[in-house]
Amino acid sequence: MKVRYGMVGGGPGAFIGGVHRMAAALDGEYELVAGAFSADPAKSRETGTRLGLDPGRVYDSFQEMAEAEASLPVDERIQAVSIVTPNHLHHPVARTFLEHGTHVICDKPLTTTLDDAEDLCRLAAERDLLFAVTHNYTGYPMVKEARERVRAGELGELRKIVVEYSQGWLTTLLEAEGQKQAEWRGDPERAGVSSALGDLGSHAHNLVRYVTGLEVRRLFADLCTVVEGRKLEDDATVLLHMDGGVRCLLFASQISTGERNHLRLRVYGTAGAVDWSQEDPNRLRIVSPDGSERTLYRGGSDLSERAQAHTRLPSGHPEGFIEAFANIYRNVAYQLRSSEGPDCRFADDFPTVRDGAHGVHFIHSAVESHSRGEWVDAAYTPPS
Amino acid sequence: MKVRYGMVGGGPGAFIGGVHRMAAALDGEYELVAGAFSADPAKSRETGTRLGLDPGRVYDSFQEMAEAEASLPVDERIQAVSIVTPNHLHHPVARTFLEHGTHVICDKPLTTTLDDAEDLCRLAAERDLLFAVTHNYTGYPMVKEARERVRAGELGELRKIVVEYSQGWLTTLLEAEGQKQAEWRGDPERAGVSSALGDLGSHAHNLVRYVTGLEVRRLFADLCTVVEGRKLEDDATVLLHMDGGVRCLLFASQISTGERNHLRLRVYGTAGAVDWSQEDPNRLRIVSPDGSERTLYRGGSDLSERAQAHTRLPSGHPEGFIEAFANIYRNVAYQLRSSEGPDCRFADDFPTVRDGAHGVHFIHSAVESHSRGEWVDAAYTPPS
Amino acid sequence: MKVRYGMVGGGPGAFIGGVHRMAAALDGEYELVAGAFSADPAKSRETGTRLGLDPGRVYDSFQEMAEAEASLPVDERIQAVSIVTPNHLHHPVARTFLEHGTHVICDKPLTTTLDDAEDLCRLAAERDLLFAVTHNYTGYPMVKEARERVRAGELGELRKIVVEYSQGWLTTLLEAEGQKQAEWRGDPERAGVSSALGDLGSHAHNLVRYVTGLEVRRLFADLCTVVEGRKLEDDATVLLHMDGGVRCLLFASQISTGERNHLRLRVYGTAGAVDWSQEDPNRLRIVSPDGSERTLYRGGSDLSERAQAHTRLPSGHPEGFIEAFANIYRNVAYQLRSSEGPDCRFADDFPTVRDGAHGVHFIHSAVESHSRGEWVDAAYTPPS
Amino acid sequence: MKVRYGMVGGGPGAFIGGVHRMAAALDGEYELVAGAFSADPAKSRETGTRLGLDPGRVYDSFQEMAEAEASLPVDERIQAVSIVTPNHLHHPVARTFLEHGTHVICDKPLTTTLDDAEDLCRLAAERDLLFAVTHNYTGYPMVKEARERVRAGELGELRKIVVEYSQGWLTTLLEAEGQKQAEWRGDPERAGVSSALGDLGSHAHNLVRYVTGLEVRRLFADLCTVVEGRKLEDDATVLLHMDGGVRCLLFASQISTGERNHLRLRVYGTAGAVDWSQEDPNRLRIVSPDGSERTLYRGGSDLSERAQAHTRLPSGHPEGFIEAFANIYRNVAYQLRSSEGPDCRFADDFPTVRDGAHGVHFIHSAVESHSRGEWVDAAYTPPS
Repeated sequence: MKVRYGMVGGGPGAFIGGVHRMAAALDGEYELVAGAFSADPAKSRETGTRLGLDPGRVYDSFQEMAEAEASLPVDERIQAVSIVTPNHLHHPVARTFLEHGTHVICDKPLTTTLDDAEDLCRLAAERDLLFAVTHNYTGYPMVKEARERVRAGELGELRKIVVEYSQGWLTTLLEAEGQKQAEWRGDPERAGVSSALGDLGSHAHNLVRYVTGLEVRRLFADLCTVVEGRKLEDDATVLLHMDGGVRCLLFASQISTGERNHLRLRVYGTAGAVDWSQEDPNRLRIVSPDGSERTLYRGGSDLSERAQAHTRLPSGHPEGFIEAFANIYRNVAYQLRSSEGPDCRFADDFPTVRDGAHGVHFIHSAVESHSRGEWVDAAYTPPS
Repeated sequence: MKVRYGMVGGGPGAFIGGVHRMAAALDGEYELVAGAFSADPAKSRETGTRLGLDPGRVYDSFQEMAEAEASLPVDERIQAVSIVTPNHLHHPVARTFLEHGTHVICDKPLTTTLDDAEDLCRLAAERDLLFAVTHNYTGYPMVKEARERVRAGELGELRKIVVEYSQGWLTTLLEAEGQKQAEWRGDPERAGVSSALGDLGSHAHNLVRYVTGLEVRRLFADLCTVVEGRKLEDDATVLLHMDGGVRCLLFASQISTGERNHLRLRVYGTAGAVDWSQEDPNRLRIVSPDGSERTLYRGGSDLSERAQAHTRLPSGHPEGFIEAFANIYRNVAYQLRSSEGPDCRFADDFPTVRDGAHGVHFIHSAVESHSRGEWVDAAYTPPS
Repeated sequence: MKVRYGMVGGGPGAFIGGVHRMAAALDGEYELVAGAFSADPAKSRETGTRLGLDPGRVYDSFQEMAEAEASLPVDERIQAVSIVTPNHLHHPVARTFLEHGTHVICDKPLTTTLDDAEDLCRLAAERDLLFAVTHNYTGYPMVKEARERVRAGELGELRKIVVEYSQGWLTTLLEAEGQKQAEWRGDPERAGVSSALGDLGSHAHNLVRYVTGLEVRRLFADLCTVVEGRKLEDDATVLLHMDGGVRCLLFASQISTGERNHLRLRVYGTAGAVDWSQEDPNRLRIVSPDGSERTLYRGGSDLSERAQAHTRLPSGHPEGFIEAFANIYRNVAYQLRSSEGPDCRFADDFPTVRDGAHGVHFIHSAVESHSRGEWVDAAYTPPS
Repeated sequence: MKVRYGMVGGGPGAFIGGVHRMAAALDGEYELVAGAFSADPAKSRETGTRLGLDPGRVYDSFQEMAEAEASLPVDERIQAVSIVTPNHLHHPVARTFLEHGTHVICDKPLTTTLDDAEDLCRLAAERDLLFAVTHNYTGYPMVKEARERVRAGELGELRKIVVEYSQGWLTTLLEAEGQKQAEWRGDPERAGVSSALGDLGSHAHNLVRYVTGLEVRRLFADLCTVVEGRKLEDDATVLLHMDGGVRCLLFASQISTGERNHLRLRVYGTAGAVDWSQEDPNRLRIVSPDGSERTLYRGGSDLSERAQAHTRLPSGHPEGFIEAFANIYRNVAYQLRSSEGPDCRFADDFPTVRDGAHGVHFIHSAVESHSRGEWVDAAYTPPS
């Protein structure tokens, strides 16, 4: 049986809604049955029709949807909701559905305030509901391979991390030209206190935590609003001191002209290093102190069980962004259905509401450090 | 409304069946409703159950499936069948479904004999049914970009083509170890007269034709069965003289140890060259005589309409093998439903039964050249 | 007539001395005629013999050499001296030879204190002698190409710079194992106040200045001594605010395990970006806001005159480290001899004593910022 | 003591003469003391002056030079001559100097006829003189590393070789525009029976032999003169059956638009493969059947003694074309002087007159196969 899910957001002009739908469809584990795709009821209905949904389950608002779905028979109502709205709506939408007993898959960053994030942590725990946050880059098999090797001690003691997330699409004041994606990301009302860190830096931060298991202790941030007229920072550099004093350099930018979606992670230890780049995701470079260097390929027989469990194709047949994203959806489905089998051993391998809270805390700490021009303490434990 | 389709082949241990299913699912355009997944009825049923199919539409044989489906009401029966069996079954299965009025999506090579291939060409034309052959590599957006630029004359007059398809997975006599994929590919009864050329060379040949529009005139082949005990060639080099005397070097190998799925095409003209590699599919390298070199990226705003119509994600968000494969499925769906819209302008952009016949003719010409040790005439026009 | 030069340092076990000699020899513009190759006279003589020098011109000390050479007839004595000793000797050696009227080619960093650096600036100016500092990475033709394009405004207004210089050879406490190169670099008496910044960061800093023409205004540094027992920092990150508020992120590391000699510069502007990497020096990547990307190749006909004047081979015939280093030597020779011709138009294109002073000031500013944990003002003009 | 050498050819407009001079100068092992740089005495003198030679040793003809030098005292006369003329002069010049007892370093291809090549083999053997042929690509350290690993059996039994040498500089009829390099290469009187094979294919053939130790047994060639008006072939594909039936595909082209100097060798065996590319010469890729892949870097501590003995710089400091070329010169010098030391263990590692004869035989066999349209026997042993 497929998991029945609904979607909030993802109407015309949206980007990430379509990605969530393809990710859910890919493995045949989900069926989209309901939606409130836009604040504009007409647009919501238009999208519902295009997607072939029962018009009776295309709603004018997320509140209506949460209630109506909860009133359907258990084997008809949605089991999970995907939230793909601008950031400021994540909290009210997620809270509403959690209250109605619906599992949540929410885009990132989790919320625009730390209070909201912690509220969701507590509520999900209370109701015992699954809550995934789509820090999708950890869904890549070779990121998982990096994690396995780093955590197994293959790099020895960790020493230094460099993580970069560079884009160039906001090189101009695109938000003033009516581009929908740029518009809300540049608007503090909808995006929150940050743009470059919220949109990109929080992915980078989550990637570091996922691969290394290290948490931030203190940080120093230098934020910059490069493009005149922009309301939030579009370039950010953050120096992080992680657990054990490990140095981490994190930089994120939306004005690095010509960069597409350049997320790259390097982790250096006493016994080696790993290097992974999102635009070339099927490879993982591993280097040794003696200068020898290995490249591992997704699908190779020399990979860990975790990486293999999140791979669909043999080596040399490229997987990409959607497949990585789909790994989050698939694992949530496996957990919802208590699925068994070799691919299900790692069903809990997806970012949760607590990872989302870590991200929100990171963003706010960086903004604080920048405004004070000082190192700030940034250790954090989300409520549970 | 989704296209209802059935599948023949694709049971346990198969590789390509799963790819077809993911490709069909990705865009939400198809619904799998029937299948004869294995010659072994128990295995067929097991697969049907795993896929959540109505047990009444999981069949013991393809003949039974063709008949039973044709007897269902028009708005219930399958509209198309995906054929993902070993090569020798392509012809009987396709013929049977065509006779029952079902559109066909068939894996490659089309058939094991040229007579069979031409029979399908004629039958599909007679019945006016769609017949796609999954030479899937032409589904990549950057291959389409190469085609647009080559055919628009951006390279000037074409002069030389180098196409290579190297794999290393058959470096040992894997077929003797019970590996299912290797077993049938190495068996002349099921694979036909060729292994390296049939499995790989036919893709390379189709890619050249698709991008350049040039057809083969004459060829010289040197085939080799490198691994002792193997019954078909596992390494092949073919020198091709194309229309207008353009030289094309095509080589395919299954014993190139360590190569994963290295399909690469280079086309050189008087005014430039293009270079595309399947393991790095989101890029297209374009070089000019003066030494300047450009790299185009899938999703870039400087791409042709054809490339953009076959792309789902922005630049920097990698697409891969499944997405390219899905472009064939999506275009077939657009044609079946006479869909309209910007993405549908190129709905006829998929390889057909006639392309499949070209491939079969190429394979047989190469085998003949090798056995005679001579150049052979290889011009060909399939029946219509 | 070849330029007669002598060398101080560069005895057995040295690395950079041999590089200087090859760089001087490559173009046939120099003849090595004298040397004080080691503080140990026996080693100095051994090196002199190996190099085929007249034993009468192999000296026991640099002081003796400076005097003896100055007493030779004008057309016999050395015209220039190459200083390839550990850092702490740069100042006394350079001062001595300047006082004797000898032109100087000195390795970097220029000196261990800012006072010393400024002393040499003044002395060279007073005596009207050439003083080159071998920040050799600016000798690469494609770095020069980047400079020409950046300074011609091809990138529009500059916005962000990322420069990285990562090595991994000091991952262990190599200086405790008697490795000569590590020994002096890790010793504050000989290396000065810094290791990672002095050895690597100063190159990165010079590269940024050379390509962009921007100077540092303020900076924030986080230095770290990662390897236990080490006396100087082996990892450094510096946030730089350049002229016009342009952000520059500079990081340098000696403990990035597995990195060989990874110096990479990216400069982003409103209209494009350049990207150059020292381990792949024959290429320069140029990206545009619309996503199109060009790769320029050393030797290409589309390069600037400056790049072409510093190139010896056609495109596709790789040049490397020695050739770049030799460009400094060749330009010094051209200046000394007032040579004319197409290659000589850029004879003043080499780093000078003033560039060296900038580097020393940068190192000391970063150390100060780190020790104070604050942003520091870092604007600087060397004396002239 | 430096080796005294003279040069024949290498006047104004020449390319390879300058390369030989830089290669000889790099390590300080040679001193250029004589030359007949052009058939035009005025140009010869102009070059001699530019190079700072004693005018008395700049000659009007190679015959005069051979005689005059032989009449000088033993410790003054040239010990070796570098021959850098167009192909048709290699034989008369080499023969003349051999007759006068001078060692020879000759560019490739050795001669324009096989008789001439064999004549030089015999004469060098009779006179017991060194005769190096500058198949310079075997001078790269990572090619030597490949050789060591292949010959040590690291790849298991060899099975397939792919070697490619693609250039694009002759995409137009450059020889009609007065370009000196193109002019003589396109003229059968000066270049011999072949252009693409003579200039490029002979390097590729030598590289295969050097790395694998395998000789050609039979071959099939398809040559093509693509550019109208050209007198010799500018594109060539040769199928080679090597010792033991190993397949080798060799292709060489001068009309592959946009290719710079793309020489690439791949050798596949039962236990792995090596992959080396001349434009990225500091790396060697090694792949294993299980999909793991290693990249070795020049200068790494994991390299063979042979590779290390031919390297001047640490890993990460790129070496290039001149350094590889210089390895031939350095080894010849070591042999001439019977030098000792760790770098001299491999002093006999340079291509000889017999390798040159192999190359000439290969070219002529390919031309014969093409003209007959048949496989030809191509086994060969040069005289000694």
